[in-house]
Amino acid sequence: MTVAARRARDVGTWHDEADVVVVGFGAAGASAAYEAATAGADTVVLERAGAPGGAAAMSDGFIYLGGGTPEQQAAGYDDSVENMRTFLTAACGPEPDLEKIAAYCERSLEHRDWLLARGVRFLGTVFPHANGTSPVDGEGLMFTGGENAYPYDELATPAPRGHVVQDGKPGGAVLMRLLAEAAEQAGARPILDTRAERLVVDDEGLVVGLIASRYGDEFAVRARTGVVLTAGGFINSPEMVAQYAPGVRVTALRLGTDGDDGRGIRMAAALGARVKRMDAIECALPFNAPRSLVHGIIVNRHGQRFVNEDTYMGRVGQTSLVHQGGEAYLIVDEEHYAPNWLGIHASWVCETPAELETEIGLPVGSLVGTVAYFNEHAERGDDPLFHKRAPVLTPLRGPLAALDLRASTFIYAPFTLGGLDTTVEGAVRDLDGEPIPGLFAAGRTTSGVAAQGYCSGLSLGDSTLFGRFAGRSAAGVKP
Amino acid sequence: MTVAARRARDVGTWHDEADVVVVGFGAAGASAAYEAATAGADTVVLERAGAPGGAAAMSDGFIYLGGGTPEQQAAGYDDSVENMRTFLTAACGPEPDLEKIAAYCERSLEHRDWLLARGVRFLGTVFPHANGTSPVDGEGLMFTGGENAYPYDELATPAPRGHVVQDGKPGGAVLMRLLAEAAEQAGARPILDTRAERLVVDDEGLVVGLIASRYGDEFAVRARTGVVLTAGGFINSPEMVAQYAPGVRVTALRLGTDGDDGRGIRMAAALGARVKRMDAIECALPFNAPRSLVHGIIVNRHGQRFVNEDTYMGRVGQTSLVHQGGEAYLIVDEEHYAPNWLGIHASWVCETPAELETEIGLPVGSLVGTVAYFNEHAERGDDPLFHKRAPVLTPLRGPLAALDLRASTFIYAPFTLGGLDTTVEGAVRDLDGEPIPGLFAAGRTTSGVAAQGYCSGLSLGDSTLFGRFAGRSAAGVKP
Repeated sequence: MTVAARRARDVGTWHDEADVVVVGFGAAGASAAYEAATAGADTVVLERAGAPGGAAAMSDGFIYLGGGTPEQQAAGYDDSVENMRTFLTAACGPEPDLEKIAAYCERSLEHRDWLLARGVRFLGTVFPHANGTSPVDGEGLMFTGGENAYPYDELATPAPRGHVVQDGKPGGAVLMRLLAEAAEQAGARPILDTRAERLVVDDEGLVVGLIASRYGDEFAVRARTGVVLTAGGFINSPEMVAQYAPGVRVTALRLGTDGDDGRGIRMAAALGARVKRMDAIECALPFNAPRSLVHGIIVNRHGQRFVNEDTYMGRVGQTSLVHQGGEAYLIVDEEHYAPNWLGIHASWVCETPAELETEIGLPVGSLVGTVAYFNEHAERGDDPLFHKRAPVLTPLRGPLAALDLRASTFIYAPFTLGGLDTTVEGAVRDLDGEPIPGLFAAGRTTSGVAAQGYCSGLSLGDSTLFGRFAGRSAAGVKP
Repeated sequence: MTVAARRARDVGTWHDEADVVVVGFGAAGASAAYEAATAGADTVVLERAGAPGGAAAMSDGFIYLGGGTPEQQAAGYDDSVENMRTFLTAACGPEPDLEKIAAYCERSLEHRDWLLARGVRFLGTVFPHANGTSPVDGEGLMFTGGENAYPYDELATPAPRGHVVQDGKPGGAVLMRLLAEAAEQAGARPILDTRAERLVVDDEGLVVGLIASRYGDEFAVRARTGVVLTAGGFINSPEMVAQYAPGVRVTALRLGTDGDDGRGIRMAAALGARVKRMDAIECALPFNAPRSLVHGIIVNRHGQRFVNEDTYMGRVGQTSLVHQGGEAYLIVDEEHYAPNWLGIHASWVCETPAELETEIGLPVGSLVGTVAYFNEHAERGDDPLFHKRAPVLTPLRGPLAALDLRASTFIYAPFTLGGLDTTVEGAVRDLDGEPIPGLFAAGRTTSGVAAQGYCSGLSLGDSTLFGRFAGRSAAGVKP
């Protein structure tokens, strides 16, 4: 089925009509629909699945918030808008979207209030098994971006910003129940089991609706003021992954729903929308719980370390996937070994690094040298190469275990960060950088706050905040 | 100036008209124009500069040819279409374009004949200072892709395929003189100092011409059968580089002309053309002549090796830029040190690795360990980590010199490999993967044979071969 836009004059029958037509009932779509409806716009939300939720409902429910939230204060952490911005500018690059980061930080406290008003509840207790793995004892706050690890701890004051949605697991499902209810109570009409296929434009290039598929039939929906694309990313389009982000090919898993097939991006690009950073991939690699495992070192297929193991586990995963071909091993000593909380045990256990490198199949002498160098400096409390910090910086002693962190076997959960180039207000830019009239987008259909680097909670965070903006823009009111 | 397509009915005056309109008079454009004109099409070539040439005319004039050329045979090398294809499939990935590689290899001998018929001359003598640096004594053939280095030497029979255009320097200027003359003699009309700005489409979406700018005035050219975009890449668009390939930001140099501003790509994308692999960057790093320097090791900012130093220098450059942030140092011993042929001397000279790592500012003990490990195995003729080969695999002895191979100081010459998604025949694909009627492209405006990996000579090679195909397709004849 083509993604090419159809001319309005070629649409025979409009099957429905609204001021604002939102595509996708995930976090961004629900937020957009709520705001559009609240602004007085007659609003429909098309969802290809049989219920709202999207990828957001599958997530742990981290929302990246800061600038001094009550939860941060309760946990004893100082934060400010400026501190948060300094961190995100460093962590979301290279070439971060400075305008989106600025808006994201400036609106963070207000956005938290908006979420609370929708029934979301957060907690000011910190989960210590950082960085990025889901809390297990109901804690509400967590470091989710390496804020307390090198180099970020030297650039900005570390503060945890991953706020976990409370009152159920996964938190993302709770969030989506609340946001979908809010959108419907505000008057947005969901149209489920309906997949958007193509945009409709008038002769002047104004987007005036879309063609969807509903139970196998064509379903044309007119949009009087705007269409909002919040249709997810493209991690589940093998063709698009091969074309834009081939590094993902080695992972056994993909993080997303069937709807993350990139159709929202392609529909807009077919109309001349500009796409951005389509190679950017985030990749969770939940190796780091229990926390004791972070005492270990992670090596590549050459037996070399390549990252500070105590940083955000998504940064470890991204680095491994993008720069090491997804080939990594965690080497940890007996004292700190425990099975990974996901139930994964060591694949190898040996008395010495020499035996271990042979068992794993690493180059002869490589792990021996890496461990000797690491231990020599760890004994003095130094990690000259990657700056892992105390207390998890300890020499490797006695028998060693190795977890197989290869993408073909371990849990790498990649999803795409690239997509439509949008303004802060949610307008979709064309190849000149100008807004395409009538077309808006948010969430992983767009390149968002995380241009390339990532923190857990940024996707729910920018989907909901910029979803709100896009919904208001589509309704014709200022975000 | 917008890149948005204009409707044909909104074009007041057509200032010129032809069957085939070629945009850009570089290697791809000249080849396309020659073939279109030879096929009987009335052909014009628009060039924004005052003379033909493009980036091709600045190049050393390597053309990647193989499958058993007379030059390869004269030099004593066996090659076959299948052997060449095996190599390129491994070297041009991940996710290489298998159809383009197949056509490229199958047509290589024929394409060499075509080049000879245009007056190009090659030589069957091999330049020993491989891999990828320009010959100095008039040699005609060279390894330009790591064919004789790990891992490729284990996958395919090594054969040199970089054929250097003879009879003048740079070879690319000789090539362009010959190809431009051929195009003009075939009847193609150049229109110089004329920059294509936007495409023109009729109401059915057929590309029927373009709008150019000529001495500040609008210049509309009608195309009766097709437009061929051969307008170069986007290395000289800071905005596009930031959006698609931000890793380039650290290099002091960019390889291309002012015309490599991505406008050809954007004009087509504005019409709904699909772009592909926009993050892919090749980067020459001419550190490896004289050949004795390859006895050295290259380390990153952690003092770790990351590549076999004896592979194609463009692969070293790409790896350094993409995976090491462009931070690298070449460490070589006194016996093998000589100033780089580009006139660059060692930045540091020390008696020991310990002193050298301090001088450079590498982490304490890092270079000491790397050199010790390398030496231990090199003495036995092994390089367990990266498989550098004899005779350049020798232990580092005595005083050591270091060349500063950082992108901020050394010569990194990056150019873009991403662009329009085209068929082998040169049709530009839309977001559905279907040809956009009337629109063709070749050269660095497209994603070509080198989807990501690269060999010197592939760009002149695929520009000329697929330029030919695109020209014939635009003229309405089979490639």
